[in-house]
Amino acid sequence: MIGRFVANGRIYEGYFEIVDDFLVFDNYEVPISAIKFLPPVIPTKIIAVGLNYIDHAEELNMPVPEEPILFMKPSTAVIGHEDCIILPSISQRVDYEGELAVVIAEDCKNVAESEAADYILGYTCFNDVTARDLQAKDGQWTRAKSFDTFAPIGPYIAEINDPGKLGIQTRVNGKVVQKSNTSNLIFDVFQLVSFISSIMTLKAGDVIATGTPAGVGMLKNGDVVEVEIEKIGVLRNHAVKIDRQIRCEC
Amino acid sequence: MIGRFVANGRIYEGYFEIVDDFLVFDNYEVPISAIKFLPPVIPTKIIAVGLNYIDHAEELNMPVPEEPILFMKPSTAVIGHEDCIILPSISQRVDYEGELAVVIAEDCKNVAESEAADYILGYTCFNDVTARDLQAKDGQWTRAKSFDTFAPIGPYIAEINDPGKLGIQTRVNGKVVQKSNTSNLIFDVFQLVSFISSIMTLKAGDVIATGTPAGVGMLKNGDVVEVEIEKIGVLRNHAVKIDRQIRCEC
Repeated sequence: MIGRFVANGRIYEGYFEIVDDFLVFDNYEVPISAIKFLPPVIPTKIIAVGLNYIDHAEELNMPVPEEPILFMKPSTAVIGHEDCIILPSISQRVDYEGELAVVIAEDCKNVAESEAADYILGYTCFNDVTARDLQAKDGQWTRAKSFDTFAPIGPYIAEINDPGKLGIQTRVNGKVVQKSNTSNLIFDVFQLVSFISSIMTLKAGDVIATGTPAGVGMLKNGDVVEVEIEKIGVLRNHAVKIDRQIRCEC
Repeated sequence: MIGRFVANGRIYEGYFEIVDDFLVFDNYEVPISAIKFLPPVIPTKIIAVGLNYIDHAEELNMPVPEEPILFMKPSTAVIGHEDCIILPSISQRVDYEGELAVVIAEDCKNVAESEAADYILGYTCFNDVTARDLQAKDGQWTRAKSFDTFAPIGPYIAEINDPGKLGIQTRVNGKVVQKSNTSNLIFDVFQLVSFISSIMTLKAGDVIATGTPAGVGMLKNGDVVEVEIEKIGVLRNHAVKIDRQIRCEC
């Protein structure tokens, strides 16, 4: 695994292993419960893909796209594992969207599908938090998806050879609300790296959020939302209303 | 003025004056013709505003928005004065869009309109280059506006007290194709800083592209496009077809 975390009062960045309930890195073993994970990367850009699971396009009554539909989320929206998603007062409906995220290993442009794996550092969990009402109102999705704290990512990056067969589920307060497999992606990870890099240079640490399956729904104040992906882990965040921001201590 | 430039084989960054045809900085005076301007900032994000001049909304047959419509352009699209706009082969219509850009001075969130000026470093010219056919096809505007070289900015940043009364025009091969004034902006500069910072933290060096007036049109291979804004200067770029990229020496 690759990550950034606080342990023993210091910030570490790099490779580690998880052995039982311990994080093993350098010459240390620290109980995972004593680790504070930071976002595993601060990307220069997050490119996200809309409507990349057929069942999600259907639940939004939107057509299945012929090519990937791209949008961006700003790096200022990034938070890590166990951090708070602040629900802004301007929105009446903020939704979770559990997603597989791809982290780019090195700067690249015009990458062929067959070579895409060479440019991928690894994979992590992502929550494409979305103010659904503003998304509908604006037409363009940028505002709805760009509020600070709307890009939870982590807890760390896993190196995975086959990202096309990963179970993915989202839970709210322990209840499963999204359940799918990355085999259901319309455009798979390697197609996305190739497509996006044909448009724009991807930089080391950039993130591609690959889209969410069916089952999106609303977050309320106090909700605990978890995105779990097979072979990676669980990204857990806490929804908090904006008027409680100052008291957020999670 | 504030900028980044190459002079005498060295890269300089900071304040300078323009006196006659010379750039005056530190203890140097260099003819402007001997200066290579770099993009004056490399922003962590470019927030752009759609349909912010009534006449442009009308020419696209789009409704005038009640609130600013936001989208983003990636920092990888940034180029400077006299650099080449590469016309990608996938698009049959790449348009210029001359715009006033705001450069943010320091990190800020929830800025009041009345205090917005305090968080603005200055203003520069921007060309929101857009693959018009892909914009229509995708619905979301990200792909159409995110190709490498699609965010010319510069040549430098001007400190201006009243950004609401600036003449703006775009020329293609010397012919005026857009001509307006920032007094025609639907949402003015200070409203935009306040609105956008209510959503997301703005970082020092971030750029807000304030929208384009009527008169957008296509760039062809070899075209010279200039965005001129009163009290700032002229941003000049060269449109080059993708198959000539390797020979581009401008």
